Amino acid sequence: MSIDFAKRADDHNYNADYIIRTLDDNDYYKLLMLQLIWKYTHLRDVPVTFSVINRTVSVRLAEIVDIVELDRQLAHVEQSLRWEDETIDALRGQAFHGTHAMFEPAFLNFLKSMRLCSYKLGKGADGQLDLTFTGTWAEATMWELYGLPIIGELRTREGLKTMDEQELDIFFARAKIKLWDMLQRLKGIPGLKLADFGTRRRFSHLWQRYVVEMCGSVLGEAFTGTSNFYMARQLRKRFRNMEAIGTNAHELPMVLHAMSRAGLLGDIAPKDSPYEVLRLWQEMYGGALRVFLPDTFGTTNFLRNAPDWVAEWTGMREDSKDPHEAGEEYIAWLKSKGKDPTTKLLLFSDGLDVDTIIKLHAQFAGVIQPGYSVDDFTCAADFLDAEKWLHQPRIRVAFGWGTMLTNAMHGCHPRGLDCFKPISLVCKVTHAAGLGAVKLSNNYTKATGAPADIDKARKTFGSEGMANIPVTV
Amino acid sequence: MSIDFAKRADDHNYNADYIIRTLDDNDYYKLLMLQLIWKYTHLRDVPVTFSVINRTVSVRLAEIVDIVELDRQLAHVEQSLRWEDETIDALRGQAFHGTHAMFEPAFLNFLKSMRLCSYKLGKGADGQLDLTFTGTWAEATMWELYGLPIIGELRTREGLKTMDEQELDIFFARAKIKLWDMLQRLKGIPGLKLADFGTRRRFSHLWQRYVVEMCGSVLGEAFTGTSNFYMARQLRKRFRNMEAIGTNAHELPMVLHAMSRAGLLGDIAPKDSPYEVLRLWQEMYGGALRVFLPDTFGTTNFLRNAPDWVAEWTGMREDSKDPHEAGEEYIAWLKSKGKDPTTKLLLFSDGLDVDTIIKLHAQFAGVIQPGYSVDDFTCAADFLDAEKWLHQPRIRVAFGWGTMLTNAMHGCHPRGLDCFKPISLVCKVTHAAGLGAVKLSNNYTKATGAPADIDKARKTFGSEGMANIPVTV
Repeated sequence: MSIDFAKRADDHNYNADYIIRTLDDNDYYKLLMLQLIWKYTHLRDVPVTFSVINRTVSVRLAEIVDIVELDRQLAHVEQSLRWEDETIDALRGQAFHGTHAMFEPAFLNFLKSMRLCSYKLGKGADGQLDLTFTGTWAEATMWELYGLPIIGELRTREGLKTMDEQELDIFFARAKIKLWDMLQRLKGIPGLKLADFGTRRRFSHLWQRYVVEMCGSVLGEAFTGTSNFYMARQLRKRFRNMEAIGTNAHELPMVLHAMSRAGLLGDIAPKDSPYEVLRLWQEMYGGALRVFLPDTFGTTNFLRNAPDWVAEWTGMREDSKDPHEAGEEYIAWLKSKGKDPTTKLLLFSDGLDVDTIIKLHAQFAGVIQPGYSVDDFTCAADFLDAEKWLHQPRIRVAFGWGTMLTNAMHGCHPRGLDCFKPISLVCKVTHAAGLGAVKLSNNYTKATGAPADIDKARKTFGSEGMANIPVTV
Repeated sequence: MSIDFAKRADDHNYNADYIIRTLDDNDYYKLLMLQLIWKYTHLRDVPVTFSVINRTVSVRLAEIVDIVELDRQLAHVEQSLRWEDETIDALRGQAFHGTHAMFEPAFLNFLKSMRLCSYKLGKGADGQLDLTFTGTWAEATMWELYGLPIIGELRTREGLKTMDEQELDIFFARAKIKLWDMLQRLKGIPGLKLADFGTRRRFSHLWQRYVVEMCGSVLGEAFTGTSNFYMARQLRKRFRNMEAIGTNAHELPMVLHAMSRAGLLGDIAPKDSPYEVLRLWQEMYGGALRVFLPDTFGTTNFLRNAPDWVAEWTGMREDSKDPHEAGEEYIAWLKSKGKDPTTKLLLFSDGLDVDTIIKLHAQFAGVIQPGYSVDDFTCAADFLDAEKWLHQPRIRVAFGWGTMLTNAMHGCHPRGLDCFKPISLVCKVTHAAGLGAVKLSNNYTKATGAPADIDKARKTFGSEGMANIPVTV
């Protein structure tokens, strides 16, 4: 039997194994946002703090994860990793529909010389990690997608230590079967478009890689890519049409809202700051990539108060609302603006699992025949029965599948331990421009910020269309 | 990612991959029988033919397995493999309870210079393989355990070719889970003793190795070893007490019966030939290894007509009868001979699966409490409830688990193909000493031999205790 010495050595060095090994093991949209932040110097140098927050308070992360090891992993990213020439070359090659370059040469030069800001790490009295990143926005923003996967994979390693060699073998066998069975339910659904958005919550780097390859292989054209730039590059060697996928995130309106309150955004009022984000974005990226994320201060008021040009945008990424309602709300808004919804994109990316993907696709990608409801759809076969469903898209639907794709390991432990229960871990802007940053979202339980700042923001934006919705991941 | 060049090269040479790579990848009891055959020169040189017979006629093996490749695999064993010094040294070290050597130096010299007889390979009109081994008994006997695993693994390879890389991954994940779940039901059953007897019907060499390692790891002391000498040596590096396990097989009474009919066994009458086997065996091996296999011409007549000294033997290996009845029959016979059954061994090795192992253990290794029956036992927990069962062995029980341990792959194919359905493939003595060889067994459907020879044997031995029992494996 041949001996893979490299693997053996790697196994022996398990604890020394770095989780983030290249800076492009990060979500593509963070790069798109970083270029925007870099481009507008009033954004680039605004001071911000990102903070890690575990919304699943029952899982006391600081008592699970070894803080010394976490510190070593973060220090490696900060001190040893730099953007490599090979990656910069790959970024230089990224284009909009093959026409013009997506990244400016000056930005790529900035990236090469860029340094991340430092971090502050401690243990909270509540058993949670106290981890913050404070610096200029340009130095801080990329930390989100280094910090979350590192914490997640350190938790994974602690879980793996509960098993011996045979149990590990069975654990991964179960995880593979679970993934396979999920994908079999989706395989062959007409018009399905699905991408991996699971970097931040992944079980591990290698598992995410396994997952995206399995998705590409099983789902074929229905799997459109991954949010992870490094993974997308690896995948493209095997799947020609695989894309790095991404839009933009809450941090843009959150920081611009704070800047406006601090008087750093000229005459833009706080209530208009979400649209200023969109204005800068389309100035930077032109007609491409125009998918807005409307829920930072509530979707309903965002749509009602949006300037008419927002209806020109290609699509909307739904978050933090009942997704069935959110989709209908977007379609109704498009119609009120005289737009044809079938030319627009509705991107779901919040707490998806196979069931929700199937039900949302049934509702928006076709016509459910009389006598049936979304609850009658549980697998691909249900979509192939013309008595039940017709593939007539009401809108272009796509899915960005996260935690439940790259970290669906609960139930796989051979002795039934629950150490792989998914948690709702985020890394959010908590301070910007010297003020507390705020996110209201459509869900009261997902609001972040100091109570006084939240109250003030509610006065600015209102609370229309908001609700209490339990959060799993 | 590191590259395992040896593995890559091996993968590329997949079709060239030899299934049998060392002559000790064979059942240990074949070696014990070979020494007996070698020791008694009237046995050693008697001409015999072994024939491969597929009792599952619905699976047309010659249309599945590539005959040219089968020929190449068999030729490799015949022409290229020899007993290696390292293996001979290991055999020299084998002892009875650590006291005296199990193999004679002269036999080991014979083994080193031994050549296998040649084989005849063709395709039958019935879609089955026509494969026979004709030579002296000493040259032919070892072929059984080269021929069966080669045919089995070639069939396996054809099945594996139906799957792409991802499907293969899922297939093996399912197989591992299936094995794990079987072993979990057995783990912790008080007094369980179980060994791997699955070489002849294994899915593949590597899978058998995986299975025995998993058994050793999960079952601990309850897993006593494997019939495969090579595997046992490999296992012993990890599990200290692992043993190569084996007794003797039908070929001994079948050949001696034919020799007796041909006048080559002195004044031993055909009806006494089964006991002559036992006499020679204990002359060769003394008090050790005395486990008889009584069913070659029917268990009931074997026991009734056995000389008193047969009751001194340590145990009985049950075959071809309803095992619950066979065990009771043996216990009753022991009592009729004034022997204490709790000092004797009852070894089950016929068509076992988890259910039958559990039910037989419940019946013979303890006392089933009033109000319960064997059907109330389905997993280890049932044995730990004193209201249900007490561990008070009625006899020493052991299990030699074959096909359903090393080749339980049905139901694992990701697209549901049935190419891994287990089949009942055997390699039996069909001719010996110029006559047709016969086996009656306890099951009419398992009788082998020409009809006239079977009739004659039924006249010699009678048909008491025989029945029709469907054969799966």
